Amino acid sequence: MADGAENERRILVAVDEGEESMYALSWCLKNLVSQNHKDTLILLYAKPARAVNTGLDGTGYLFSSDVTATMERYSQEVADCVVEKAKKLCKNLPEVKVETRVENGDPRDVISEMAEKLAADVLVMGSHGYGLIKRAFLGSVSNHCAQNVKCPVLIVKKPKAPSGDK
Amino acid sequence: MADGAENERRILVAVDEGEESMYALSWCLKNLVSQNHKDTLILLYAKPARAVNTGLDGTGYLFSSDVTATMERYSQEVADCVVEKAKKLCKNLPEVKVETRVENGDPRDVISEMAEKLAADVLVMGSHGYGLIKRAFLGSVSNHCAQNVKCPVLIVKKPKAPSGDK
Repeated sequence: MADGAENERRILVAVDEGEESMYALSWCLKNLVSQNHKDTLILLYAKPARAVNTGLDGTGYLFSSDVTATMERYSQEVADCVVEKAKKLCKNLPEVKVETRVENGDPRDVISEMAEKLAADVLVMGSHGYGLIKRAFLGSVSNHCAQNVKCPVLIVKKPKAPSGDK
Repeated sequence: MADGAENERRILVAVDEGEESMYALSWCLKNLVSQNHKDTLILLYAKPARAVNTGLDGTGYLFSSDVTATMERYSQEVADCVVEKAKKLCKNLPEVKVETRVENGDPRDVISEMAEKLAADVLVMGSHGYGLIKRAFLGSVSNHCAQNVKCPVLIVKKPKAPSGDK
């Protein structure tokens, strides 16, 4: 109950390159994270597996190992950058324990599996996470997670109007 | 921010006959409602329009006005009962303002429209809301709302194992 009950919660927040996932994290920090709970925030970034594990691009051409290495380095830099940005957002809440995870794989699978594995009490995510066209074919990541993850799922959309992030 | 900021929030909770929506409400009361915010909880029940506005059942037979009246009465009783049950869950939080709304229509439309109309800051709902077969054809209510509602949507599933409602 809100009035003083103290239970430990594991809040899993899926972050990616998009502004929306950072907005989702901010919303979570303002609205879900509470002094009445002992919260552990787990920031999860899913690093798409294709650029990492195979040398094949979508057209079937084999990349040289140089290109593959460059892509992997770039992919790791993006991951580090996203996680760092997310951690910065949390630094105003020193009472909250923050953990970070970077996992390889399709975001839909990674997020669903990690929610289970980490015994998350709630999953927080933006409503997007793929490009517009890819999403049309694959269905959105958040839809997939809302259907497959057992714990409560909070889906946050970034308001289009440039209002304060409430 | 969680540390003492005080902003007013309008939390819209979609309730129905199912246990899951009551679980979603409980989860919301324990995890989202907070003393750091001035929360108004709006309990919304969508009363399916078919039994109310038409005398036709799914097979095309016309019901007598007696039957229609009985169905309408029953439908209203269910609505009252659900809203009453939901209100009882909230009575331990006297600092939270509770409003109730009963609206006629398809739950998907009612919930999406009311989230907009009532300027909800967050929508809370169970992941179900239709029977299994109907859902397979129509898509779930929560899916529809997650896609169409602009504010953050929290979708709560009732755990299958008989654990405490955390």
